[in-house]
Amino acid sequence: MTPPTPVETPLLLLDAQRMRRNLARMRERTDSLGVSLRPHLKTCKNIDVARRMMSTAAGPAAVSTLKEAEYFFEHGVTDLMYCVGIAPSKLEHVAALRRRGCDLKIVLDSVEAARAVGQAVRSTGERFAVLIEVDSDGHRAGVRADDPRLLDVAGALRDAGASLEGVMTHAGESYNCATVEAIAEMAERERAAAVDAATRLRAAGHAAPVVSVGSTPTATCARSLEGVTEVRAGVYVFHDLVMAGLQVCRVGDIALSVLATVIGHQRDRGWVLVDAGWMAMSRDRGTARQRVDQGYGLVCDAAGEPIDGLVMIDANQEHGILASREGPAFDVDRLPLGSLVRILPNHACATAAAFDAYHVRGLDGEPDAVWPRMNGW
Amino acid sequence: MTPPTPVETPLLLLDAQRMRRNLARMRERTDSLGVSLRPHLKTCKNIDVARRMMSTAAGPAAVSTLKEAEYFFEHGVTDLMYCVGIAPSKLEHVAALRRRGCDLKIVLDSVEAARAVGQAVRSTGERFAVLIEVDSDGHRAGVRADDPRLLDVAGALRDAGASLEGVMTHAGESYNCATVEAIAEMAERERAAAVDAATRLRAAGHAAPVVSVGSTPTATCARSLEGVTEVRAGVYVFHDLVMAGLQVCRVGDIALSVLATVIGHQRDRGWVLVDAGWMAMSRDRGTARQRVDQGYGLVCDAAGEPIDGLVMIDANQEHGILASREGPAFDVDRLPLGSLVRILPNHACATAAAFDAYHVRGLDGEPDAVWPRMNGW
Repeated sequence: MTPPTPVETPLLLLDAQRMRRNLARMRERTDSLGVSLRPHLKTCKNIDVARRMMSTAAGPAAVSTLKEAEYFFEHGVTDLMYCVGIAPSKLEHVAALRRRGCDLKIVLDSVEAARAVGQAVRSTGERFAVLIEVDSDGHRAGVRADDPRLLDVAGALRDAGASLEGVMTHAGESYNCATVEAIAEMAERERAAAVDAATRLRAAGHAAPVVSVGSTPTATCARSLEGVTEVRAGVYVFHDLVMAGLQVCRVGDIALSVLATVIGHQRDRGWVLVDAGWMAMSRDRGTARQRVDQGYGLVCDAAGEPIDGLVMIDANQEHGILASREGPAFDVDRLPLGSLVRILPNHACATAAAFDAYHVRGLDGEPDAVWPRMNGW
Repeated sequence: MTPPTPVETPLLLLDAQRMRRNLARMRERTDSLGVSLRPHLKTCKNIDVARRMMSTAAGPAAVSTLKEAEYFFEHGVTDLMYCVGIAPSKLEHVAALRRRGCDLKIVLDSVEAARAVGQAVRSTGERFAVLIEVDSDGHRAGVRADDPRLLDVAGALRDAGASLEGVMTHAGESYNCATVEAIAEMAERERAAAVDAATRLRAAGHAAPVVSVGSTPTATCARSLEGVTEVRAGVYVFHDLVMAGLQVCRVGDIALSVLATVIGHQRDRGWVLVDAGWMAMSRDRGTARQRVDQGYGLVCDAAGEPIDGLVMIDANQEHGILASREGPAFDVDRLPLGSLVRILPNHACATAAAFDAYHVRGLDGEPDAVWPRMNGW
């Protein structure tokens, strides 16, 4: 089954030196802001990366699926937060994980969900550990900090016999900010919403010790996290073109790339065809709404240096079309048939998900490695 | 490891009755057009589906990666065409498959690639079986039928000692047609380009017996395939919203859906939140450029009936936001917490790729089944 060639493209490359710098930078940020870091493992879905992200081998960490929770718990991570509003049908699974010793926290934002937890408390004997999700940006889930329902949810959790650990929010809207200043303002909005919600809960007699916020942009740009106890962020470990477009990182910080092989040309159009299409890059076009549209990815040479203005302008399932973003047509002779290129992704979470392993280069004092990735549900 | 709940969402559902109808319809099409059907297995990536698509257990069939070729060959499929221009570094792998008894054909569109095949003929002793890719629509790869280089490539293959089987083309541009009439015209263009190329090759003394064309839209709408020997198509097995938008199928023909659970609401905005986001649906927004933009998918009830105008208007990694496509806000009480919905995908190939299995319902005289899917490279 092992193909006879050592490198068959497309392949997911991970530059461990860049990853190390990204990790150190976020660690400095959260240290200087005086908050704990709960890395979100939905980006990496691999224990080797996770161990480099986490403060201890047991966590804390955040996950986006129960399958991630299972995987990381089996690899020794016990302090986990499942950051997607709990479906009532998943409570038995959560209880089973908790019985096995996984301190898996759940989130919810409604009285209905709190009542479902109450039913599960009665049927499983588990008290669960619950955070109320706060809506800080109108982006998706959560109850607003000033909404009377916030206290209703907390009351329903008390009635349910569940343990209210605190509040959490995620300013996903930060991905749409135009400037670093705007991200810093979004971070302040995220902080204020979470702290306000916790303050209201505490005033009503709930302990609510945890105030959890975060996204990579807001964590990077926040000026103060007063009142916050922990930050969740994930994509910073690899970074990507969307983060670079937000000025949250530089293109040179992006640790993840797809290695592809040139399979042909359309000389008259200045096109180079490669064997990585949207299946490898994902269909994410997150830079389309940014100042610089990077198509399906920014093309680098095999050493990782960007080739001026060459992007994947279009993609089919297993074909990528590389061309100049603007200006004169690309001189296709610069990339003859069989050349290797590295393509930086718009969105690390989406691109990594197409692959079952990272090919890791640049590990300190260790040979190159292959780290498996989990996917799915 | 098995979750305690029998159905944990998101889950990929396959309606076997719809699939059967789709398969019968395409089989009737190709029979009545007098051509062989070479189903493209890049959509299903599963042998149980593939066996229902193919004329015989051994093929013919098309694949988009060598990993697919390995997988299907191990399951008894020997007549395979790898439909992505060959990378020189993959020729040894192709040769290894052919030595093991897999009649794996390759495609290329340049003298450079033909010369690389020549080197591999010498180093491996394999003659290979090669089709020249013809560009019928300016969409991606291929040499135009009237380009002098067509004969240069054929000549280079002869010099290489390789076996030129014929020509192949794919009118991917058919996905951008506005009407069935336009697709039929594109089908005629696809047919004419392939037949012209084969005619020129034969006039120059090359045998070129195979004339292979295809895409689901052109295969569905072609009026004549005179001179064509085989049609390749894949997505017709499941169909999707892009195909429905092209009027190549009806929404009721779409056999694939993502089962998701309601995890919350934003009542004031008429939003329903579910536990399937872009990781499950993919980032494909193929209907964005069509007459009806279906967002990230069209929402049906648990029985598969569309809920009038409810679509996934936005998606995060594991969150989907359902709302009315237009008009008054959706009455969220129609989908209480814990409700199950089925979401039809924009693009079956992309959505299926997020999952490692199909949950199959409606098999004739058989219980529901779980069919594994392969992914990656």
